[in-house]
Amino acid sequence: MADLNRVVILGGGFGGLSAALRLKRAPVQVTLIDRCNYHLFQPLLYQVATGSLSPANISSPLRTILKGHKNTQVLLAEATGVDVANRRVLLSDGAIEYDTLIVATGSSHQYFGHNEWEQYAPGLKTVEDATDMRRRILLAFETAERETDPEKLRAIMTFVIVGGGPTGVELAGALAEIANDTLRHDFRHIDPSQARIVLVEGGDRVLPAYPPQLSEAARKMIERLGVTVRVNAMVIDVEKDLVTVRNGDATEKFTARTILWAAGVLGSPVGRAVARETGAPIDKAGRISVEPDCSVPGHPEIFVIGDLASFTHQTGQPLPGVAQPAIQEGHYVAKAIVRRLRGEESKPFRYFDKGNLAVIGRGAAVADLNWLQLSGFPAWLMWIFIHLLYIVEFQNRLLIFLQWAWFYLTFDRSARLITGKNPLPLDL
Amino acid sequence: MADLNRVVILGGGFGGLSAALRLKRAPVQVTLIDRCNYHLFQPLLYQVATGSLSPANISSPLRTILKGHKNTQVLLAEATGVDVANRRVLLSDGAIEYDTLIVATGSSHQYFGHNEWEQYAPGLKTVEDATDMRRRILLAFETAERETDPEKLRAIMTFVIVGGGPTGVELAGALAEIANDTLRHDFRHIDPSQARIVLVEGGDRVLPAYPPQLSEAARKMIERLGVTVRVNAMVIDVEKDLVTVRNGDATEKFTARTILWAAGVLGSPVGRAVARETGAPIDKAGRISVEPDCSVPGHPEIFVIGDLASFTHQTGQPLPGVAQPAIQEGHYVAKAIVRRLRGEESKPFRYFDKGNLAVIGRGAAVADLNWLQLSGFPAWLMWIFIHLLYIVEFQNRLLIFLQWAWFYLTFDRSARLITGKNPLPLDL
Repeated sequence: MADLNRVVILGGGFGGLSAALRLKRAPVQVTLIDRCNYHLFQPLLYQVATGSLSPANISSPLRTILKGHKNTQVLLAEATGVDVANRRVLLSDGAIEYDTLIVATGSSHQYFGHNEWEQYAPGLKTVEDATDMRRRILLAFETAERETDPEKLRAIMTFVIVGGGPTGVELAGALAEIANDTLRHDFRHIDPSQARIVLVEGGDRVLPAYPPQLSEAARKMIERLGVTVRVNAMVIDVEKDLVTVRNGDATEKFTARTILWAAGVLGSPVGRAVARETGAPIDKAGRISVEPDCSVPGHPEIFVIGDLASFTHQTGQPLPGVAQPAIQEGHYVAKAIVRRLRGEESKPFRYFDKGNLAVIGRGAAVADLNWLQLSGFPAWLMWIFIHLLYIVEFQNRLLIFLQWAWFYLTFDRSARLITGKNPLPLDL
Repeated sequence: MADLNRVVILGGGFGGLSAALRLKRAPVQVTLIDRCNYHLFQPLLYQVATGSLSPANISSPLRTILKGHKNTQVLLAEATGVDVANRRVLLSDGAIEYDTLIVATGSSHQYFGHNEWEQYAPGLKTVEDATDMRRRILLAFETAERETDPEKLRAIMTFVIVGGGPTGVELAGALAEIANDTLRHDFRHIDPSQARIVLVEGGDRVLPAYPPQLSEAARKMIERLGVTVRVNAMVIDVEKDLVTVRNGDATEKFTARTILWAAGVLGSPVGRAVARETGAPIDKAGRISVEPDCSVPGHPEIFVIGDLASFTHQTGQPLPGVAQPAIQEGHYVAKAIVRRLRGEESKPFRYFDKGNLAVIGRGAAVADLNWLQLSGFPAWLMWIFIHLLYIVEFQNRLLIFLQWAWFYLTFDRSARLITGKNPLPLDL
């Protein structure tokens, strides 16, 4: 083993895990490093944040997934940087050498220079983010039940979601269903369906990555659920319980106890370290421009894939920061490494766009398959099948299916737990 | 509604919830107060701590359970005391008046005057305790995988469980199965089955509440799983990574990174407040001596039920702090309240002992049904059926059954997530 090519993969998300899976029988020695002990199926994270699923339903222990890979070890560790000259990854508690490095550490929220907004408007990237968001949403209704001042009550019952991309739309739809259906008979002093849910998008339509007619269909579907949609509304300030947006010359203020952030992403700090060390170009979203083979310019031994990579060789634009490009890049890079060890060249990476799907609510979704656009119930059915198909463990597929079926029949969200060290008093 | 008898129930555990359920159509106005928004099925909490189930699987939102009870409101609040003279419950953020009060706030851990031990040896009472314990257990193996010093490795791979009651035995058995089976092929540098699991009990046998032959059977079953059992071993000191026990004149020290507490319980602070205010006798475990009708001496309007009550009128001993007495007391008190409003007397409470069950591992349990003692596979089957039967929501019954079936077939524990705000570095 000792003289095998040592492939170190940073990150066990869609990109890193796909690469690791594809390297199963390759003549290399693989180390997968993640700071979590599980792979997270991020597209369903909003369902944890809104109490439909439990964290374990969308997480699979990395060691379980890779237990049959005799050439692979998993390390629970945090990468803090890369020492490119000595081919070492720096960890918070040590270092590890590589011959080939795959950086797939993904992205986090971006507040566009206003990091102070984060405390008032948390984002959704990790399991902890999701349980915290769930807690905020549920505590808002609990607090409302005990509030008697009508003005305060109005603020407590207002929810603002910043960002009209898939996550924002999915959160808005799920929140509306919680208010209208799930909690319908749960309270004695408030009517949860009186909650005001506002979706704020800076661009001129929701789901800007979709064809305009699907954006329009999505907007109609969320509005039908009772969500107030504001487009062309740039957030210019976030304070405690207050969001200010600007539309042209007009500004509008929303007083809301619960503000959720689904707007921007920023490549992980490891990406910036790699850029610093290698001189690779990095964009405002913290993405590293990669070569046609996903490697870093001048460093064929370092690959960057997934959200952290800006791959522009196909369309002139970076590929979208969703699961499919990450998975395909992971597979491609794994193959390229094996070919390189055999002395063979690889063709440039080519992304095969299978399309986009976003769900709005029960029986409501939009699907853009490039050759076909669907909205409403058929898109929703497709969404369900595809998501179940891609969940890593068979057991989780079954559990999620059952919980969805239950939810579809009853509107009941079983994972409606307020957890956290100090659940009370009701202030956050 | 305004002139109906106002029944305030503190605590949505087995006792408080049973009372609330039984009061469904009673001519009273019910307020159920809990600091959690869910009822927790505590007998399965150790399965969350050991990664078999998710918190939501054993929790049901109180509002969902009681949504059909038009005479009942649920308040998420923390009771801090009782103002008996003015018939008011004091909350951390307000107060609420009652005509009849049911105190069912349960118990927490007891360190027998050594509260400083808690930080090194956490107990298991809440969902947060369970996810913290899960984190400690899983992080121990992760840390071991990266440890090279053999002496440190030994400490990291040692787990001490203090207390040989049902929780201690169940934790020891589950830990042994994690080490022997679940994690079997997960690591590259350590062999999880080399973990040393020590169960320490102060009395002369494990499961002291069971008949001696079942204690013996339980001990054999856990020893067969590889657990080291020490009886007559009183814990005299707990420090970071070190437990000291005394057996007669001999002392023994265990160096262990992971120490879990399953030894003593202490009635909740609200119980002490009630005792202070009413002068009711309270024992060392913080339990209030109640009258034959579960009321507080001299205060027929205050009932204490469940773990917090010391009901000695039947056997001369307090009833055990498990689910059955709490449930039966809850039902009894609800009925007694309704009868009293009608001007009728109630017969004293009588506990019907259905027996005791504890599980050791896959296919291994002990059951004491008074007229029948079982151990091994038949006891285990009975344990499964009874626990599924008592889980509150049908959906959760189905989900738990599926996860158990999966676990039985594969040894895989799917809820093996290390969560928490700062999962790294590997130190706690």
